Amino acid sequence: MEENIKMKEKKVVVAVDESEESMYALSWCLSDLFAQNSNPNSTLILLYIKPPVPVYSSLDVTGYLFAGDVIQTIEKYSRDLANSVMRRADAVCRNFNSAVKVEKKVGSGDAKDVICAAVDKLEADILVMGSHDYGFFKRAFLGSVSDYCAKHVKCPLVVVKRPKTA
Amino acid sequence: MEENIKMKEKKVVVAVDESEESMYALSWCLSDLFAQNSNPNSTLILLYIKPPVPVYSSLDVTGYLFAGDVIQTIEKYSRDLANSVMRRADAVCRNFNSAVKVEKKVGSGDAKDVICAAVDKLEADILVMGSHDYGFFKRAFLGSVSDYCAKHVKCPLVVVKRPKTA
Repeated sequence: MEENIKMKEKKVVVAVDESEESMYALSWCLSDLFAQNSNPNSTLILLYIKPPVPVYSSLDVTGYLFAGDVIQTIEKYSRDLANSVMRRADAVCRNFNSAVKVEKKVGSGDAKDVICAAVDKLEADILVMGSHDYGFFKRAFLGSVSDYCAKHVKCPLVVVKRPKTA
Repeated sequence: MEENIKMKEKKVVVAVDESEESMYALSWCLSDLFAQNSNPNSTLILLYIKPPVPVYSSLDVTGYLFAGDVIQTIEKYSRDLANSVMRRADAVCRNFNSAVKVEKKVGSGDAKDVICAAVDKLEADILVMGSHDYGFFKRAFLGSVSDYCAKHVKCPLVVVKRPKTA
């Protein structure tokens, strides 16, 4: 049984976003989870979820139609952010000089739902996330993505907290 | 930097209790976290927290003094449970035939507080827990130990969910 587990392809999904916490989680993954990993079949999947495009009424408060270029600007910003996050994640991976195979996936929608759905669809062996140390109010109103994922993903979830001294 | 991390002693704490979920988390730890682990300095620490001994009034409802043997019985039950959990955990470790060094620690008190304090004191590199899939009410009233630990421990936390088909 152990032998099968050792040889089986391992899929590690790291949920990345524009936060320092998620980049720290990615570093931890490469330094601690993969550094000692002798399994040549491991794949690191960087997963970024674009926020949902807001559904505007076609009339703004002044009664004018929303110009198409406003929507295009929002979409461009969203794409730019995704590219920027993936470039940072790439830089972190290069920094560790790891031989691990890296794949990238970009989804869009409510992060917690899309992450859980993607992890199940990818049949990931483990999901790694940074812990956002929001204050009481933000947590109480927005809820925590990692709390939600801990309850809803089927695979083990690693919540990585960024040390305050770092 | 990577080299230092590779050579450094790794302390993995697994919080065990009488649940199937915690034994599954321990198995996952041995099969997935340690199977590919070539670090000879890794230590697996089995951490069991005995529930706090209830503080009774020395007079029970009938006005009689609590007999010493009642308290002794409660304490004996608590010790027996701790021993039984550790024996099961031992059996799981033997089953994996892992060369990893295993230590045992038993604490007592409110599990979530004692786990967080122990993990910090031991300077653990990672904490592994089973996910108890309590229903909405139990979770709402009792809260979740893993939610609490995710917010309060300094090291990365792995929450391992037992597959429903297992």
